[in-house]
Amino acid sequence: MPQYENPDLFKAALVIIGNEILSGRTTDANTPWIAERLTERGILLAEVRVIPDIEAKIINTVQQLSADYDYVFTTGGIGPTHDDITAESVAKAFDLPLERDEEAFAVLEEYYGLENLTPPRAKMSMVPKGSTLIPNPVSGAPGFIIKNVHVMAGVPRIMQAMMDHVLNQIQAGKPLLSNTVTCSLPESKVAEELTTLQNKYPDVDIGSYPHYRGGVLGLSLVMRATNSDSLDTVTQDIIAMIRAHGDEPRALSVGSHGRNLDVV
Amino acid sequence: MPQYENPDLFKAALVIIGNEILSGRTTDANTPWIAERLTERGILLAEVRVIPDIEAKIINTVQQLSADYDYVFTTGGIGPTHDDITAESVAKAFDLPLERDEEAFAVLEEYYGLENLTPPRAKMSMVPKGSTLIPNPVSGAPGFIIKNVHVMAGVPRIMQAMMDHVLNQIQAGKPLLSNTVTCSLPESKVAEELTTLQNKYPDVDIGSYPHYRGGVLGLSLVMRATNSDSLDTVTQDIIAMIRAHGDEPRALSVGSHGRNLDVV
Repeated sequence: MPQYENPDLFKAALVIIGNEILSGRTTDANTPWIAERLTERGILLAEVRVIPDIEAKIINTVQQLSADYDYVFTTGGIGPTHDDITAESVAKAFDLPLERDEEAFAVLEEYYGLENLTPPRAKMSMVPKGSTLIPNPVSGAPGFIIKNVHVMAGVPRIMQAMMDHVLNQIQAGKPLLSNTVTCSLPESKVAEELTTLQNKYPDVDIGSYPHYRGGVLGLSLVMRATNSDSLDTVTQDIIAMIRAHGDEPRALSVGSHGRNLDVV
Repeated sequence: MPQYENPDLFKAALVIIGNEILSGRTTDANTPWIAERLTERGILLAEVRVIPDIEAKIINTVQQLSADYDYVFTTGGIGPTHDDITAESVAKAFDLPLERDEEAFAVLEEYYGLENLTPPRAKMSMVPKGSTLIPNPVSGAPGFIIKNVHVMAGVPRIMQAMMDHVLNQIQAGKPLLSNTVTCSLPESKVAEELTTLQNKYPDVDIGSYPHYRGGVLGLSLVMRATNSDSLDTVTQDIIAMIRAHGDEPRALSVGSHGRNLDVV
């Protein structure tokens, strides 16, 4: 799909580290939030991987994604317990020593008090050599940036604060705009026309998503592009196509763009 | 972590194909459902990847995961539109021809009527040569199994019916049991004791998950094992540890096991 080759956009991968998503215990709420924030900044989320806290798996995943994408974001595994091995594994991925960051240590000393700075808590000041810290306004222990990898906490409230900090500083692309039009046509009825439209407008992604809501089958057509003129033109064509089939677009956002329009 | 090396368990990967999760438009609800069903059947979900509908990305991901895991499950991209390229890509991943399955064609003919079986609809009868079909009781178009890869729809209601069919036939492992104990201790306070317990009981996974609920920091300790005796012993040790710190486990499941106990 063209957006994944659009030179106006940076491409990012997200690595969710931790067994709680894989076990089904916790539903991942971080991906949609991160995807929206990245999109606003012209960064396309191009891949997500959920992996357990196994050192070899983290090393391999970080190496591969760091080479393949402009930016990598990780969540989880930077706490004080035995299953928090992200910092150590990322250091190994880049063949860097893990060392105490004095600024991080000072933050932890301030947060816990020196007398309560036990070895597990002090562990949270260890980062790969050469890292830049990401402040944690919620619970002290910072995240860090090394090369193009941004290592953040998994708890949503902390992750969001860290991500906001990162996104204020990161090199951004051109915002990815989107329009959504919904109708009640079966997607197989418009499949050939959608193919024609997609071929006609290669700089716009046209996605077709059938869904059941209240037992009724519906279809959402989602257009995404960095070029607002192309986006508007395709949207008008889609609306005309739906009307030509005797259906009326039931909810649509036309002529303006932004993440709030992505769900109608 | 030991469960990922436990010979009593099969290991599986899930590939979620489609741009709607990556764009943040849709929250993935399939992973927790699939994880729980697999766990019941002694199959550990060891990795999840969310990828866009780009042929090269699907081919590469399927090849890698099919080689690395006992089972691979995919969701999404088997409908009639231009962005539904999963079947074709999986065929290419295994260097197999994509061919019309007569049984699938008959199902689609029955579902749509021959006069309405347009090329986009007929496309849904195309599967890699040698595939076994997965019936779709909801909307006709089947999924399929080729080698260790199980290709299913992305719409949850259809995916669930397909998964139930697959799990009735698949070679299962020993069920992975779990107990959860929650408390209000900060995890950094029990980190060293948890490490000691984890080292003492290598056949049990001990996970430590801090969370905010209603603005209050809490801690869930999740134990997972296929051996119920080990699981019970660790659980008792964890409870004793919490009480030794002057806290009382607020919600716990002890002595019996199963997925309903996984969230307390």
